[in-house]
Amino acid sequence: MVPRYSRPEMVSVWSQETKFRIWFEIEAHACDALAEIGVIPAEAARTIWEKGGAATFDVARIDEIERETKHDVIAFLTHLAEFVGPDSRFVHQGMTSSDVLDTCFNVQLVRASDILLADLDALLAALKRRAFEHKDTITIGRSHGIHAEPTTFGVKLALAYAEFERCRQRLVAAREEVATCAISGAVGTFANIDPRVEEHVAKALGLKPEPVSTQVIPRDRHAMFFATLGVIASSVERLAIEVRHLQRTEVLEAEEYFSPGQKGSSAMPHKRNPVLTENLTGLARMVRSYALPAMENVALWHERDISHSSVERMIGPDATITLDFALARLTGVVDKLLVYPERMEKNLNQFKGLVHSQRVLLALTQAGVSREDAYRLVQRNAMRVWEAGADFLQELLADADVTAALSEDEIREKFDIGYHTKHVDTIFTRVFGTAEK
Amino acid sequence: MVPRYSRPEMVSVWSQETKFRIWFEIEAHACDALAEIGVIPAEAARTIWEKGGAATFDVARIDEIERETKHDVIAFLTHLAEFVGPDSRFVHQGMTSSDVLDTCFNVQLVRASDILLADLDALLAALKRRAFEHKDTITIGRSHGIHAEPTTFGVKLALAYAEFERCRQRLVAAREEVATCAISGAVGTFANIDPRVEEHVAKALGLKPEPVSTQVIPRDRHAMFFATLGVIASSVERLAIEVRHLQRTEVLEAEEYFSPGQKGSSAMPHKRNPVLTENLTGLARMVRSYALPAMENVALWHERDISHSSVERMIGPDATITLDFALARLTGVVDKLLVYPERMEKNLNQFKGLVHSQRVLLALTQAGVSREDAYRLVQRNAMRVWEAGADFLQELLADADVTAALSEDEIREKFDIGYHTKHVDTIFTRVFGTAEK
Amino acid sequence: MVPRYSRPEMVSVWSQETKFRIWFEIEAHACDALAEIGVIPAEAARTIWEKGGAATFDVARIDEIERETKHDVIAFLTHLAEFVGPDSRFVHQGMTSSDVLDTCFNVQLVRASDILLADLDALLAALKRRAFEHKDTITIGRSHGIHAEPTTFGVKLALAYAEFERCRQRLVAAREEVATCAISGAVGTFANIDPRVEEHVAKALGLKPEPVSTQVIPRDRHAMFFATLGVIASSVERLAIEVRHLQRTEVLEAEEYFSPGQKGSSAMPHKRNPVLTENLTGLARMVRSYALPAMENVALWHERDISHSSVERMIGPDATITLDFALARLTGVVDKLLVYPERMEKNLNQFKGLVHSQRVLLALTQAGVSREDAYRLVQRNAMRVWEAGADFLQELLADADVTAALSEDEIREKFDIGYHTKHVDTIFTRVFGTAEK
Amino acid sequence: MVPRYSRPEMVSVWSQETKFRIWFEIEAHACDALAEIGVIPAEAARTIWEKGGAATFDVARIDEIERETKHDVIAFLTHLAEFVGPDSRFVHQGMTSSDVLDTCFNVQLVRASDILLADLDALLAALKRRAFEHKDTITIGRSHGIHAEPTTFGVKLALAYAEFERCRQRLVAAREEVATCAISGAVGTFANIDPRVEEHVAKALGLKPEPVSTQVIPRDRHAMFFATLGVIASSVERLAIEVRHLQRTEVLEAEEYFSPGQKGSSAMPHKRNPVLTENLTGLARMVRSYALPAMENVALWHERDISHSSVERMIGPDATITLDFALARLTGVVDKLLVYPERMEKNLNQFKGLVHSQRVLLALTQAGVSREDAYRLVQRNAMRVWEAGADFLQELLADADVTAALSEDEIREKFDIGYHTKHVDTIFTRVFGTAEK
Repeated sequence: MVPRYSRPEMVSVWSQETKFRIWFEIEAHACDALAEIGVIPAEAARTIWEKGGAATFDVARIDEIERETKHDVIAFLTHLAEFVGPDSRFVHQGMTSSDVLDTCFNVQLVRASDILLADLDALLAALKRRAFEHKDTITIGRSHGIHAEPTTFGVKLALAYAEFERCRQRLVAAREEVATCAISGAVGTFANIDPRVEEHVAKALGLKPEPVSTQVIPRDRHAMFFATLGVIASSVERLAIEVRHLQRTEVLEAEEYFSPGQKGSSAMPHKRNPVLTENLTGLARMVRSYALPAMENVALWHERDISHSSVERMIGPDATITLDFALARLTGVVDKLLVYPERMEKNLNQFKGLVHSQRVLLALTQAGVSREDAYRLVQRNAMRVWEAGADFLQELLADADVTAALSEDEIREKFDIGYHTKHVDTIFTRVFGTAEK
Repeated sequence: MVPRYSRPEMVSVWSQETKFRIWFEIEAHACDALAEIGVIPAEAARTIWEKGGAATFDVARIDEIERETKHDVIAFLTHLAEFVGPDSRFVHQGMTSSDVLDTCFNVQLVRASDILLADLDALLAALKRRAFEHKDTITIGRSHGIHAEPTTFGVKLALAYAEFERCRQRLVAAREEVATCAISGAVGTFANIDPRVEEHVAKALGLKPEPVSTQVIPRDRHAMFFATLGVIASSVERLAIEVRHLQRTEVLEAEEYFSPGQKGSSAMPHKRNPVLTENLTGLARMVRSYALPAMENVALWHERDISHSSVERMIGPDATITLDFALARLTGVVDKLLVYPERMEKNLNQFKGLVHSQRVLLALTQAGVSREDAYRLVQRNAMRVWEAGADFLQELLADADVTAALSEDEIREKFDIGYHTKHVDTIFTRVFGTAEK
Repeated sequence: MVPRYSRPEMVSVWSQETKFRIWFEIEAHACDALAEIGVIPAEAARTIWEKGGAATFDVARIDEIERETKHDVIAFLTHLAEFVGPDSRFVHQGMTSSDVLDTCFNVQLVRASDILLADLDALLAALKRRAFEHKDTITIGRSHGIHAEPTTFGVKLALAYAEFERCRQRLVAAREEVATCAISGAVGTFANIDPRVEEHVAKALGLKPEPVSTQVIPRDRHAMFFATLGVIASSVERLAIEVRHLQRTEVLEAEEYFSPGQKGSSAMPHKRNPVLTENLTGLARMVRSYALPAMENVALWHERDISHSSVERMIGPDATITLDFALARLTGVVDKLLVYPERMEKNLNQFKGLVHSQRVLLALTQAGVSREDAYRLVQRNAMRVWEAGADFLQELLADADVTAALSEDEIREKFDIGYHTKHVDTIFTRVFGTAEK
Repeated sequence: MVPRYSRPEMVSVWSQETKFRIWFEIEAHACDALAEIGVIPAEAARTIWEKGGAATFDVARIDEIERETKHDVIAFLTHLAEFVGPDSRFVHQGMTSSDVLDTCFNVQLVRASDILLADLDALLAALKRRAFEHKDTITIGRSHGIHAEPTTFGVKLALAYAEFERCRQRLVAAREEVATCAISGAVGTFANIDPRVEEHVAKALGLKPEPVSTQVIPRDRHAMFFATLGVIASSVERLAIEVRHLQRTEVLEAEEYFSPGQKGSSAMPHKRNPVLTENLTGLARMVRSYALPAMENVALWHERDISHSSVERMIGPDATITLDFALARLTGVVDKLLVYPERMEKNLNQFKGLVHSQRVLLALTQAGVSREDAYRLVQRNAMRVWEAGADFLQELLADADVTAALSEDEIREKFDIGYHTKHVDTIFTRVFGTAEK
């Protein structure tokens, strides 16, 4: 966790205070269930809720006990007993540490997911607003970094919207993957604890009981969760790189918002660098990288080993905090992005008329020219535009082989930019359900 | 693709012949739609289906043309024209190569998914059969590789069943991710091709139209697909490692089936090595590794670059072929696994009675002993078993502090193995919907 | 291995024929040593060399035997015996399969390294030639994709040269890592085979004896090898991306060579896409990804498990073949790269004079203006160039605060492009040992 | 950085205080060089050293300035000026931020390397001590987790020693990779700063000048550095997994030291879990995972983009702190490992005499039995030991086909354990230079 790439709400999900509070709630809910089925006195459960609920757990004190016992849950229970008194012996009855640890981890991941879902909603809202704003802003589409055919800037943003909409669905599925609770004892057989305890605690915490666990909740769930974050981060990277390209000096069709006091370079004061999106590119690399140790965590030995724990102490916070920060930063970039339609138009016309080459090619084949010949005709005229700065329309009109197949009117008609945008409403309707704001 | 880790059905999904056949179908279906909306003659569409459908495409000939044109789709279209004749000029009207390539790739991934789903079904069936067979086969549960409490071998297999059931659901979702079709032209604006063509082809191929594409189908879909395969491979690895542990000389609770003619070692003839599951461990590493380049493929430049292509030419076949092979091999291992219940029982009793320590601990606390004291009492007796080979029950009965809290009958009652298996039916019902075969 | 990304020399390193030939040589050299120390008859060793040396091993026959024995080395030895006759019983005396397999794998990796080193030499030669050719070709340097200060195209290539020179050193070290031989028996104790056999075979094959092995050669060596290939691939990616940027329509300072018959796009005939370097970007992702399973291969169980084997059957060929192809392709790109100095100059002057802003900033501070004030002065004039297309020199000359600190001559003197290239010879001397061709 | 997996010395390398102190030293050394070549007054350089050297930089204040300027180096320089006064305008003359940032990062990596090298030295010392202690402690070697032939526990440790000795060499090379200094200006041309400044600062800081840089030091160096840490972590994992296997209940040949107050399980007091080595397994996964974003960092755009920065802010500390902690923890594990030779002997004899099977096989072939027949003879007797608990020697003596080839004495002679350890001194001499302590 690097403070500069962290936001407080997500950080607090992973604080020691939050963790101990969740531990307490798991234990206290379990006591309710144990009391309900007659294993411990109902009075004890009430006392535990009352005294534990009022307690402020002392992280330093728990750490101190852990240094002696080398066991975190025992340290916590010992500390809890300092508040609860003799009834504390009813806490954790028949449970094993992982019942608490694993269920807590999942509670934290679910909370983190909820924050990330809200982040995605904010990003989607920004993308939608800007997409409609620029629905008809003509810009050149590029494949291989080379000018292809016109599109609109709104379509670019609609694409990002559709992509993050998919990311949202994936995250909902990933949240569901980890929204489980296990209170099943040392090897998952419920030998010392009735399955009804698990069912009660799961319900109380908004989770589902893990159908079959083995001291630990199976880690394929978490592998899927972190892999999903990696995929979402890769989409963040894609949009970030799009912005970086648009802000290149030679392109300059859009720029990250540049605040008045901001300095671009200690040596070149005029430089406006796309530092936010470059930063997002790096953050995406990190979130993506966490998918691998999460996958390696799946193959725990027999009913469990604890190798996953150190990994999760790192990637639990790091992946969610970093992705939360990245999504929020990306939302800011989208929201305030400076868009330059004039420059888009200027770039589009850099090679005069060349963007219409495919239409001409198609018209030639439809006029009976073989595909191979049409290709050669278009290419020889295109090359004069590309290499000598000629005007594609004029070249075509002066090419006897072309005019043999197409009339001047037919050729001119192919140079209508509106031809390329006629289906933008269709695309918007597919993505947003409507083409109207 | 390594032949020894390949199965023919999946290999054929990725053959050149299959690819060109799919290309043809995409083009021919597109011609139907183009004819339907009046862009090309209906007669031409029929000719294309007829002559192309009857053609046997010559891979070597297409390669030869590609060496000249350096463009694979043009090479194919040129070859197709050799069969179709003059009407071939109506093929690929307004389309761009990626319309064909990307839709074909998704068709291949969908077919691969269907094979993998069948693999998972076979694995699930084997796991279910063996799980019920060993529902009551007592074995020691282990955490940290150390004996913990008893469980049953059936529960181990039920856990694997639940895990691969989740994998199946993930794969269904991953299949859905890539089951899209894009025929949207050079930058996805449908400038030269009506969206109805895409809709028609999608439907004809069992796909959904990609809501918004940009020459390419967005690669976040494929990143999610390959990440999912990586997670499934990690579950393969988990079960493989479980078998490897069980087959260790000192454990020997289960063995991979060993065929009569098989040689274990060129130097030590008696050795029966768990080579299938070791092999699966390595294959899992490979499938997992493919998730990363798939995620790096997401951030294509602008409307597309072609950097994803070489990656997909490798991981498309490699990931699906390897996982198909791994799932089939794992199914064979599960199906024929030699299980040794006597050895399980012997291992369980290696430390006499120690598996019951938690019950004793719990009984002591319920008898009013503080948790800390109970822990110490159990530990001091357990250590004599662990270190000196004593019998845990006898030690407890001889410990005045223990007998002060619990009567002999109460202590003896804690040494009932059935105590640990009383909820196995509950677990089976959760996993399989029933506890009966 | 994808044929389109493979070159025959490297492919042949990994052929079955090559593998069996190496196996034979290992066995035959071992026989020499065994004869030398009197374990087997000298006559037998001679016979083995003679008959085995003359034999053409039949891969299909060996496969057939392996299908029965499920053991590759035994299958090979059985086949070898078909040529050698009764003396074949002296082959493989006291050896274990891995003695052959691991030593063979290292021989293959060493041969692959030698090809890769030759590839790097060819790449370095191309880079050097083009670097000197463009030592003085002025171009704009860019940070964050934004124009910074002038540099030369030769410096860009010198940087790449220095980078691949480092890659070469790393590969030499990586080759050394895997240039070992182990013939140490079932657990590495030389129980059944004298260490002198290992020493003899190592020497004969140009390897060093593995100081301590355990049936297998330790896999940290191979992890380092494949990690090194991943780093080299990342440098390939860097240079590929540089070219892709330079070929962007708006930049167009360089282009991949475009052969006459080549088609850029099935729909847009004029497009010249940087498909080779895009392809290299994807190939780099693959080579990089192989580093991970190689690292996961290190932690084999006890004296060995065989999980590494399937990984190496894949990444051994895939990583070396792909990197070989990528280096050769990159060499071709560099060698034939079309470089457009006029366009470089035009781009450099896109914002009139702005590249000299840092010099002006520095001059102002040296003239006594505080750093903060100088920064503001430069920035306000730079912004008019950036945003309104003004001429930086004229703006400065018209700014009273600037002319209060610097005379007109002093200002004009800052607009000398030669100022930026005065140390190019120093850089070339550092990189190439000389600044002269 | 997770406090529980961190050690203070390495943490301090990455503190803000350390970073600003290094920044100051870079700037002050540069001032010395600038004064030496007459660019700034010598007096100014002295003042800067004096006042800056005495200053305690206020991290909170620098953060505050950075929040306004959004530029960390400018924030630092502004703060430095608060100490130095007017002469501060001579600081950073002609330099660019990356000159400071990149050189500082490399200084930190070099310091981190030195700590890691010391860690490795401590680990090597522990391994050597324990290796000699157990040079002759017989234990079974295992391949595939299955008993193979005897070796000694000392040989296992010698293997680890050799492996970490290689890791040490790799780390020395990796340290060399990053021990460079760049002070070359905005695009690396030294336009505004003389190369002699770089040379001076490099020397003063114990670095080498970067031959050619581009505002940034090329990131292939750092990719190699972090890849090397990943390989070292993989070796940590290997040894950790070895210990985990040895501590398994059924094996129990060694145990992590268990301190008196330590609790193994909150539910099962007798359990002694290999939690340190399980933890190391997880930490290794993390360090390994950082290699990937480091490799992705290589392909910066043109002369630099800043995407690497966020990655390095994370993996710089995380990789080095985690590996430092892991190496220290592993050293403790090795140093205090409880080794149980009696148990090793007991395990070795689990299958009576079977470890001698290869010798018998070899003796049979040397007695003229064909390899195939010898294999079958040994296998049929071995299987009775394996499956029925027979004694291998007795079985062989009772097998007429065996005794037809070998006399009883010849057979008995094969059951000498010393046979397997006769070359241990050779191995130790290869690894440690001597077989004597």
